[in-house]
Amino acid sequence: MTLGITQTVFANNSASDGHGTFAYTFLWIAVILLLSKLGSVVEKFGLPSVLGELTVGIILGNLSLLSFDFFEPIKQDTTLRFLAELGVVILLFQVGLESNVTSMKQVGLRASLVALVGVIVPFVMGAYILGPFVFTEGTPQHIAHGSLFLGATLTATSVGITARVFKDLRALHLKEARIILGAAVIDDIVGLMILSVIQSIVITGQFEILEVIRVAFVSLLFLFGGLILGRYIGIPVARIISSINKSSGAKLGLALAMCLFFAYIAHSIGLAPIVGAFTAGLLLDEVFFSSFDGPSVIPKITAALGGTSNPIAQEVTHVLEEHTEKHLEEIIEPIGQFLMPIFFIVVGLDVRLDVLFQPSILLIALGVTIMAVLGKIVSGFVAGKGTNKLLIGWGMVPRGEVGLIFASVGKGLGVVNDELFSVIVIVVIMTTLLTPPILSSIIRRNVQQ
Amino acid sequence: MTLGITQTVFANNSASDGHGTFAYTFLWIAVILLLSKLGSVVEKFGLPSVLGELTVGIILGNLSLLSFDFFEPIKQDTTLRFLAELGVVILLFQVGLESNVTSMKQVGLRASLVALVGVIVPFVMGAYILGPFVFTEGTPQHIAHGSLFLGATLTATSVGITARVFKDLRALHLKEARIILGAAVIDDIVGLMILSVIQSIVITGQFEILEVIRVAFVSLLFLFGGLILGRYIGIPVARIISSINKSSGAKLGLALAMCLFFAYIAHSIGLAPIVGAFTAGLLLDEVFFSSFDGPSVIPKITAALGGTSNPIAQEVTHVLEEHTEKHLEEIIEPIGQFLMPIFFIVVGLDVRLDVLFQPSILLIALGVTIMAVLGKIVSGFVAGKGTNKLLIGWGMVPRGEVGLIFASVGKGLGVVNDELFSVIVIVVIMTTLLTPPILSSIIRRNVQQ
Repeated sequence: MTLGITQTVFANNSASDGHGTFAYTFLWIAVILLLSKLGSVVEKFGLPSVLGELTVGIILGNLSLLSFDFFEPIKQDTTLRFLAELGVVILLFQVGLESNVTSMKQVGLRASLVALVGVIVPFVMGAYILGPFVFTEGTPQHIAHGSLFLGATLTATSVGITARVFKDLRALHLKEARIILGAAVIDDIVGLMILSVIQSIVITGQFEILEVIRVAFVSLLFLFGGLILGRYIGIPVARIISSINKSSGAKLGLALAMCLFFAYIAHSIGLAPIVGAFTAGLLLDEVFFSSFDGPSVIPKITAALGGTSNPIAQEVTHVLEEHTEKHLEEIIEPIGQFLMPIFFIVVGLDVRLDVLFQPSILLIALGVTIMAVLGKIVSGFVAGKGTNKLLIGWGMVPRGEVGLIFASVGKGLGVVNDELFSVIVIVVIMTTLLTPPILSSIIRRNVQQ
Repeated sequence: MTLGITQTVFANNSASDGHGTFAYTFLWIAVILLLSKLGSVVEKFGLPSVLGELTVGIILGNLSLLSFDFFEPIKQDTTLRFLAELGVVILLFQVGLESNVTSMKQVGLRASLVALVGVIVPFVMGAYILGPFVFTEGTPQHIAHGSLFLGATLTATSVGITARVFKDLRALHLKEARIILGAAVIDDIVGLMILSVIQSIVITGQFEILEVIRVAFVSLLFLFGGLILGRYIGIPVARIISSINKSSGAKLGLALAMCLFFAYIAHSIGLAPIVGAFTAGLLLDEVFFSSFDGPSVIPKITAALGGTSNPIAQEVTHVLEEHTEKHLEEIIEPIGQFLMPIFFIVVGLDVRLDVLFQPSILLIALGVTIMAVLGKIVSGFVAGKGTNKLLIGWGMVPRGEVGLIFASVGKGLGVVNDELFSVIVIVVIMTTLLTPPILSSIIRRNVQQ
């Protein structure tokens, strides 16, 4: 009706369709949040809750196969996709907050090695071993180009899933987590270079070294420039503003502003926004740090309250334990809890189960998946002494974002055909669904003892 | 392209529109958050921070008058408008959480009286006193219809601004706050009835009593049905799910799901989504209540830690004091802090200062504004004994959303001309900007002593 939702905001008062859409988005978010909490039942079976969210998303997204179309509009809702994107940006920002520049530097070399091996091995496997199997028709040039794209697609690590599992298990402090995160950032940069190279080979027929140097230069400029500017300009400004307004709202607003600004800059130079958000998190780790250590005073307080059996002592202990986390991370947590499930459910929504119904494609896809997994597991072995190599390898396994973008760029160039595209979708599904339970079981068994 | 969608979610570098837009929205959010914190400098002068946010929005939105167009895209960003809308929904949900059904019932009669007087007086003033002054040209029927719309426009209270001021000053527990909130909900329902009546008079030339009854019935059904269903179905379900998963994430997800679901239902029957969110908040007040009372144990703990001069004792005291608030409200707070400034800045963005440059319109607008303010202040006088009548009256003063929607419906029907529309925009600007400082000064001086 005309009154629609009066509430958009002032001036675009007309009964804009924007309004009706907003209300539907409210409904979809409510549905997603409710189902994601139902999906978290998997935690009871020791499985990571991200798996529950992905599964809920896959079910919602494929109900249309059973002719139940009620949830189809969710897939088209741009606002929901924005919230999903914001969710993964916030997730990587949180992960960045839990790390810091110094500790990342310590693993810099190892992370670079892992990233390089994790790019080279899957690329060679894809381009030179699998390619000729997958592409049986067409000109030699066509086969060569298709194989290059298949190789490129297998290089890209999707760090969202891994980060989420480590975060949920409170394992982000592990050296393995830092190596994986560092490697994923480098991976994103290397992936960007590979894509530009292969694109130029397919389009111009030649390898353009200048383009590669340009991409590498801009990416490194962003990372180091961001770290330096952030430290010498961003942080002092944030300190000044937060000294004027000490409320948690001001702290939150400034932190989010920096996170989103870095995400924007990263995107604008061709990197994933999450790389920017992670970098902002690394930087901000050192600001807004609450030095109060709750747990250290618990024994004294418990004694004063008459021992641990006293229910009030238990509550106080609980409250103080929660306050060990740094304050900013605590404030951001609810925003992550709100938006993260939206991201992982939307990822699930986009999984098209019907591609699994074609036996020949499924068979090829299984082969490619095995190679894709092995190629990344190998990368874990160069992580150096004193690390759980299997954990690092599996942490690098999930494909997703970048791989699918590569595939669709290849499709746009006419190099990746529909079958290969379906194969890549299946690889993404498999690596996405396999990784969370495996990672969480490795962390629980071998590391957190 | 089969995968289409994944592109957006699976973040990144290809130049898909969705993606580019998302990155820009990140930038705009960053700008808005940063500027809103700068705007909060007004707090130093004892002014409510919402005024700072509105002012920042007005400046951003009118820089184009100085030929500076950089921020113009912000106005067109649908995602930002969605976040603004979500922000005011969350705000009213928070306000609902801080109230409860029982205490709202206690003020029910007074709130109804305030709402009725606050609708009748401005309507009569607008339609029968101001109307003939404003409409000097056209047929008698045209003048009569225009006057009716002017009257209707003056009835609508926009509770967002008032709620924000009370919330910031931690004054939501005041009886005055509850009366205003109750009156605003009733106001929204009555406004819906008035609009449907006037629309039918203009379109069909007659008063359709059946339509009025229908609107009243559906609205009341929503309010009471929502309260009953929520209590006997929603809350038990929430309790069961949160007993399975006790994490704060689960609590938050369920609460937000309920809030957004109610907002959707309210919208779908023609009410403002914020009415739904407020109702959900009222209901959920009784669930998820943490019975732990931190402050009561502070003296004992402080003594054990060697007195209040001990810095650790101070920190513990601080931590425990923060925990007096109910847990759910605390978890939702950061989401409100993130989204609320977006709402109020977007409200400011839509203010068109150029309408103020036309002296004749400005003069009429000032007259209408005075009537608009007086009409609502009068309503405060029926609030009964033991209340600050001026506070209630001013709390009802802000127009905004609903008034502008009425005006644009009238414009669509050809009854409201461009001049009257500008007049209404000015009334909205004035009441929006006047109310926050006046409310906060009344609360500070007379109530919080």
